[in-house]
Amino acid sequence: MTADQPPLPAPDADDLVVPLRAGERLAISRALTEVERQSLTATRLIAALVPYLGKAVIVGITGPPGAGKSTLVNALVRQVRAVGRRVGVLAVDPSSPVSGGAILGDRIRMTAALDDDGVFVRSLASRGALGGLSTAAIRSIDILDGAGFDLVLVETVGTGQSEIDIADVTDVRLVLAAPGLGDDIQAMKSGLLEIADILVVNKGDRPDAEQTVQQLHGAVSLRAHNRPLPVLKTTATTGAGLDALMTAIDERAKVAHREPVAVRRRRRARVVIARAAGDLITERVRSGRDSKLADLADALLAGHIDPRTAAEHLLSG
Amino acid sequence: MTADQPPLPAPDADDLVVPLRAGERLAISRALTEVERQSLTATRLIAALVPYLGKAVIVGITGPPGAGKSTLVNALVRQVRAVGRRVGVLAVDPSSPVSGGAILGDRIRMTAALDDDGVFVRSLASRGALGGLSTAAIRSIDILDGAGFDLVLVETVGTGQSEIDIADVTDVRLVLAAPGLGDDIQAMKSGLLEIADILVVNKGDRPDAEQTVQQLHGAVSLRAHNRPLPVLKTTATTGAGLDALMTAIDERAKVAHREPVAVRRRRRARVVIARAAGDLITERVRSGRDSKLADLADALLAGHIDPRTAAEHLLSG
Repeated sequence: MTADQPPLPAPDADDLVVPLRAGERLAISRALTEVERQSLTATRLIAALVPYLGKAVIVGITGPPGAGKSTLVNALVRQVRAVGRRVGVLAVDPSSPVSGGAILGDRIRMTAALDDDGVFVRSLASRGALGGLSTAAIRSIDILDGAGFDLVLVETVGTGQSEIDIADVTDVRLVLAAPGLGDDIQAMKSGLLEIADILVVNKGDRPDAEQTVQQLHGAVSLRAHNRPLPVLKTTATTGAGLDALMTAIDERAKVAHREPVAVRRRRRARVVIARAAGDLITERVRSGRDSKLADLADALLAGHIDPRTAAEHLLSG
Repeated sequence: MTADQPPLPAPDADDLVVPLRAGERLAISRALTEVERQSLTATRLIAALVPYLGKAVIVGITGPPGAGKSTLVNALVRQVRAVGRRVGVLAVDPSSPVSGGAILGDRIRMTAALDDDGVFVRSLASRGALGGLSTAAIRSIDILDGAGFDLVLVETVGTGQSEIDIADVTDVRLVLAAPGLGDDIQAMKSGLLEIADILVVNKGDRPDAEQTVQQLHGAVSLRAHNRPLPVLKTTATTGAGLDALMTAIDERAKVAHREPVAVRRRRRARVVIARAAGDLITERVRSGRDSKLADLADALLAGHIDPRTAAEHLLSG
């Protein structure tokens, strides 16, 4: 992770806390870079920020490719800025950090004025082929939360692993669907519908949008646990439906923030550790050089052990 | 996993091996059910099948919703049967085992004659919101391989976790794209393109199909490691392009099967264990009752430890 970074001197955590808390762009940017580097500075900085964490409303925005996530994020940023609230955006981009990582960030920067200190956008690499949020992405939420943004929008492409991550580390989860979903509503059922707090059919001006809204209502009503799950129609390009969406987000955030901040902070920390543990296990499987795992694989093939017991052995040192 | 199963008497592994090897439907069906139950019979049965594993060509078929995966699987089954080869299909369905699990299976059964012993279709639940292949799905491949099918098609919806699983447990990976992918080609770049052996633009009769083929060629040429990656156009409904696709699959399978069968078997076993280990970690995070994880989360929040070190502690017992 650190090999390709230029050898900048690492800033001291103590020097970053005050300007970061004041919302200074340079401090936020350097803090996020330290988090990406997984440096000691990052660990110390987040520890120093702990007393301030849990104030921001963390909004996860996910959905299949083509649902219009970037456009909606863009429209939400404008909506939030119009009422003077500050907003940070983390765009978790599955393409490589080199080739595609900055595209979304650039797009938003173009529409939201570059000199607006009320908006901060950062594109982050996802965990590559693994999908999902990296430990760095999850800890970046803490940085923006600590920097005093009122809202933090976390946009991910809707892959399975992202969804579970989003569910664990955000307060409000928007799941977007494109009009004309048809048979694919089936595919959304357990994965995306399970984690959603608000369903959004974007491109609401398309003729098949209303039918998709109705299909989603149908799918929602079939779920086992019937907590309320609003289905909203927005047209990001015209701003239609954005007011109702913001209201729904704030309503849901109120519910989420009833949970004590210490509990939310600890859950995010647990997820960070679990994600790092998953990465370690994947490295062990991939390397093929782990003798314990090799022995367990042989025992499994010989029928001496079942998968779960093998996993318990693997995790017990 | 076992709570909802009717209390059938568990068949003995020894009684299943011979009829399973003979390709008897009932034996295959019962064996797959044992695997889903994660029973001792399943573990013993797979151990007994080990000497016969590694002959089938395992084909992973994935891609975003709407790319036409089920239609292509259907067409491939017909193509394979036309030359007398036997084919098993595992459809990993992300919707719940109750509501949607059988839909694809039923669809294929309708087109491939029900009394054709050369085709066997089973729909499996995915790991729910987690996405990806369950340990049962991976072990089901062994069952169909052991039952002597020439090809095993594993169809999954293209979520991040499925992709990595597919890459580890199959010989040939088809990634499907729908025509008119446009900007979303970006999203495919690292995730789906990384694992693909063959790219397929299905719905090849649509006017924008050729443009998507060209875009994919462009994306492929930009990759760092330039192993050959064919881009094929198929029209599942008419059968156009299916011959070329089958040839490409067989070519790639030849390369994959140069790797010794013992190595392939062990890799699949390692992935099964890793998947089970991931499930265990998720359970620990979810339960919130794991005192070691809680301590590590507190140490992380206090800045005493970084995520990777915390993960190492978690995995070391």
